[in-house]
Amino acid sequence: MDEKNISQAVIGRLPRYYRYLGDLRDAHIERISSGELSKLMKVTASQIRQDFNNFGGFGQQGYGYNVEYLYTEIGKILGLNEAHRLIIVGAGNLGRALIGYSNYENRGFIFEGIFDRSEDIIGEKVGHLTVRPMDELEDFIISHKIDIVVIAIPKTGAVDVADRVVKCGIKAIWNFAHTDLNVPKGVVVENVHLSDSLMKLSYMLQK
Amino acid sequence: MDEKNISQAVIGRLPRYYRYLGDLRDAHIERISSGELSKLMKVTASQIRQDFNNFGGFGQQGYGYNVEYLYTEIGKILGLNEAHRLIIVGAGNLGRALIGYSNYENRGFIFEGIFDRSEDIIGEKVGHLTVRPMDELEDFIISHKIDIVVIAIPKTGAVDVADRVVKCGIKAIWNFAHTDLNVPKGVVVENVHLSDSLMKLSYMLQK
Repeated sequence: MDEKNISQAVIGRLPRYYRYLGDLRDAHIERISSGELSKLMKVTASQIRQDFNNFGGFGQQGYGYNVEYLYTEIGKILGLNEAHRLIIVGAGNLGRALIGYSNYENRGFIFEGIFDRSEDIIGEKVGHLTVRPMDELEDFIISHKIDIVVIAIPKTGAVDVADRVVKCGIKAIWNFAHTDLNVPKGVVVENVHLSDSLMKLSYMLQK
Repeated sequence: MDEKNISQAVIGRLPRYYRYLGDLRDAHIERISSGELSKLMKVTASQIRQDFNNFGGFGQQGYGYNVEYLYTEIGKILGLNEAHRLIIVGAGNLGRALIGYSNYENRGFIFEGIFDRSEDIIGEKVGHLTVRPMDELEDFIISHKIDIVVIAIPKTGAVDVADRVVKCGIKAIWNFAHTDLNVPKGVVVENVHLSDSLMKLSYMLQK
C-alpha cells in the first residue's frame, strides 16, 4: 500500500471514519456502500471514495465495503494494531478525565503512569494508577517503554516537561497545555488547544 | 470590513494568532513585523500577510503591526468583545477541568451553571458553581440567557441533551461527547473529539 504524500486533511478524517465504522460493526452491519456511508457521515460519496483511494480503495465491489475489513484496515493505517504505552503528566481534573475514558484501552492505548509535581497528591490513587513524583519521570519512561507522553498541565512548565521527555527518547506528545511546544525533528506533537477551540465557536456563533 | 468567503482554514488559525499576540502584549511588546511573527509562530510571513489581508490587512506600515491593535481587532473578529454565558452539562472530571481554566473568564466566557444527572453529585460545589439536576436545564438556559452549552458527558445521552438545548434556542454547542450531533441549520457545533486526536497522534508516530 502506497501511503506517501497523503494530505494532512485526509489523515485528519481517518479517525472519524474509524469511529463510524466501529459503530456500524458494533451494530452488526456487514456491508455499507459509499452512498450510505456518505449519508450517515454527511460527507459526499465522492469525498469518501477519494479518501479511500489514497489507501488503495479498500476493495469496494459495487455492492459496498465490508465493514469489518474497512474498520480493521483503517485501524492498521492509524497504527491501532500495535499497543501504545502512555503516561500523563498532570494529575488535575483533565489528567483524571483522560484516564477515565476506558475506550482508549480498547484501542491499544495503555495508561501506565500519572505524574504530578504537587506533594499533596503524590501517592493518591487515580483510577488504577498512583500519582508519582516528577523526579521519577525519566526512569519510568525508560523502564516502562513509554512511547506517548500526555501533557496535561498549565502553560508554565509544559515546555520544560517536553524537553525532559524528548531527552528520554519520547517521539510523540499529546499536548493539552495552552502553548506550542518546540520539539526536534522526528518528534510529533498533537495539540489540543481547548481555548482555541472555544474561540472558534465564538467566531461561528456571531456569523 | 468585508468578512465574507473567509475559509475555515483561516478562521481555524485566528485563535492561534490571538494567543501569540496576547503573549506579546503581556510581554509589553508594542510592534512586531510579519517576519518576526513568522519566526515566532513558525508559519511563513506570506501566510500571515495573506491571512490578515482577509480582514483588511490590519494596517501594517512596513515597520510592523501594532500588537495591541492587532490583538484587539482579532479579538473582535473572534467575537471576544462580547461576553458569552455558558453552562456545562456533565460534572465529571472533564466538566470540572473546563471550569478550572480561569483564563476563559478573562476572554469573556462566563460559566453560569453546571448540570449532571447523577443524584450523588447534585448540590456539590464545583469551583464557584453548584451542580444542578437535569430537569432544571431548560428553565436555567432561558432565565440566565445562556448562549453556549458545553456537552461533557459520554456518547450516550449527548444527542438527547443537544436536542433539548437547541429547543431552548441555543445556537452554539461545544461538544466533547464521542459522537457527532445532528443540529438544525443555524446552530453551530465545535467538536473536540479527543479519541480522534489521539488516533491522529498514533498515525503520525508510526510514520
